[in-house]
Amino acid sequence: MTQAAPQVDLQPIWQLMTAFQHSAAFKTAVELELFTKIAEGNKTAADIATATNASERGIRILSDTLTILGLLTKSGDEYSLTADSAFFLDKKSPAYMGSAVEFLMGPTQMRGYTDLTGAVRQGGTTVKDDGSVDPESPMWVTFARAMAPLMFPSGEAIASNLGIPNDQPIKVLDIAAGHGMFGILVAKAYPNAQIHAVDWPNVLTVATENAEKFGVTDRHHLIPGSAFDVDLGTDYDVVLVTNFLHHFDAETNTTFMRKVNAALKPDGKAITLEFIPNDDRISPPAEALFPLVMLAATPAGDAYTLAELKKMFEDAGFTKNEHIALSPMPQHLVISTK
Amino acid sequence: MTQAAPQVDLQPIWQLMTAFQHSAAFKTAVELELFTKIAEGNKTAADIATATNASERGIRILSDTLTILGLLTKSGDEYSLTADSAFFLDKKSPAYMGSAVEFLMGPTQMRGYTDLTGAVRQGGTTVKDDGSVDPESPMWVTFARAMAPLMFPSGEAIASNLGIPNDQPIKVLDIAAGHGMFGILVAKAYPNAQIHAVDWPNVLTVATENAEKFGVTDRHHLIPGSAFDVDLGTDYDVVLVTNFLHHFDAETNTTFMRKVNAALKPDGKAITLEFIPNDDRISPPAEALFPLVMLAATPAGDAYTLAELKKMFEDAGFTKNEHIALSPMPQHLVISTK
Repeated sequence: MTQAAPQVDLQPIWQLMTAFQHSAAFKTAVELELFTKIAEGNKTAADIATATNASERGIRILSDTLTILGLLTKSGDEYSLTADSAFFLDKKSPAYMGSAVEFLMGPTQMRGYTDLTGAVRQGGTTVKDDGSVDPESPMWVTFARAMAPLMFPSGEAIASNLGIPNDQPIKVLDIAAGHGMFGILVAKAYPNAQIHAVDWPNVLTVATENAEKFGVTDRHHLIPGSAFDVDLGTDYDVVLVTNFLHHFDAETNTTFMRKVNAALKPDGKAITLEFIPNDDRISPPAEALFPLVMLAATPAGDAYTLAELKKMFEDAGFTKNEHIALSPMPQHLVISTK
Repeated sequence: MTQAAPQVDLQPIWQLMTAFQHSAAFKTAVELELFTKIAEGNKTAADIATATNASERGIRILSDTLTILGLLTKSGDEYSLTADSAFFLDKKSPAYMGSAVEFLMGPTQMRGYTDLTGAVRQGGTTVKDDGSVDPESPMWVTFARAMAPLMFPSGEAIASNLGIPNDQPIKVLDIAAGHGMFGILVAKAYPNAQIHAVDWPNVLTVATENAEKFGVTDRHHLIPGSAFDVDLGTDYDVVLVTNFLHHFDAETNTTFMRKVNAALKPDGKAITLEFIPNDDRISPPAEALFPLVMLAATPAGDAYTLAELKKMFEDAGFTKNEHIALSPMPQHLVISTK
């Protein structure tokens, strides 16, 4: 060579090109309940294979892969869980969240990435029936079942940030309730709260199951239908708008927040839970990576900056908007007063 | 909470669950030639969108994603290439390797990961026609065209490690030549070498194209067919067995290496190029992650340790095996003397 090579490294590019393989390995491990079987005491590839009803060769390769990826440790030919995998991926752990792969890596979500190039070309999902925002999509039932465990920390953060004494009787509207956990956790924290959950009827069955589990059925009421179309009712103290606005464009959101505003009492509050990137749109990473998910799955969804959200809320008639980051979670609250 | 939470972090798990999204973003950027268009001077999302014939919204989200993933930088609303992306992903760079996504993320490879759980259960690919090792697969033509740029450093390493004076006339057999680059680079380094390239006829057309490009057509001879079945010829000084053995089980490889041994001159050498993990099978990472690729794509392929390869080669009649790691590349040479 006549010229010095520049200081370059193929490794970051190689990692991106092969990252999908590692997502697939993780999904397979969850599907085989590999972490749970290791937690039960199966340590060698042979034992784990028997426990998961799989081949020893397949389990050996999968377990080595997961070791390299940081979710197992290996000593000799024995595998063990890490603190993270024991806490989040053993089905017997109360914090188990492996079910999230059923939604995040399920066929409907994956479809959006099959033609991501098409989505970038046209500026929105190429999945027919409008992808994620199709009201008839069974995906939201999967979502409601799969994602509930991931929602606990945000749900608890909402309940503790209402700024209302918790012995007060309050009327709460839970928009696109899904699993219902946000409203249900408010109901747990506020023994005199009445929760009204809006969602498509098939999804509300999951919310009702969860309300039963948490013993709040008598204070959990259903408003079946699209939040855009149904009569939401009036005189709410609080409206929960959780992980909802990112599916739609700013104009749709402004119009919708006017409807929310109208449903509130004079001093009522809308609590928005969102991924909120900084104005540079490249930080913090988890928040700023979220728009890609919306590009793949929706016609016009996005992760909005705080300035963009404030504009929507002010245009919808809210006078004050308080921002609370829920770091280290990538989610944020905006508490908007009528 | 009555108990301290253990020191756990959801982030590594979240990254694995969403890694496939980032692979898809990378593939889309290559397909749209986004890096090339930025190299040509398009800096804002609007300009890049026009140059790539895509939507501004889609390009803004894609470019922000690639910035977070480390392949672009962003200043204000202008994007620039990094040293890595300028070197490897601008089509006008001689080191351009974006074509690799056509193979590594092409439909045939992706199929293997769609049912990775099935592959772990049965211990090999669930793709019909034996996945990667189907002789009629057009995948190997894609491979030959897409992967040639990635093969240069290994090819140059082979040519410089033959241990034969380069003015000597040598007869070289290039097994499963594919793109033909390994034999061609030996031909470039050895002006008196004659290369005999074995591969399926549809694949050899690509090797011939490359032989023409490098001006060695008159010394590049074709042996069309499966390396397992054809008459390989005799009296070779060198047989190149490059990225071949990982597709098959140890017994198949031992039998095959006997055939290679028989084709060599008495003092001839077989040069094996392989991903060779350490005995622990979890290091180095790039080598040790390769078995998953074989599990997804082949009935019984693997990345073999040096001890395993030596056993195959000794059983096949080789007397001496010299190991050369090509670090920082994940590939290794084993030079086996008859």
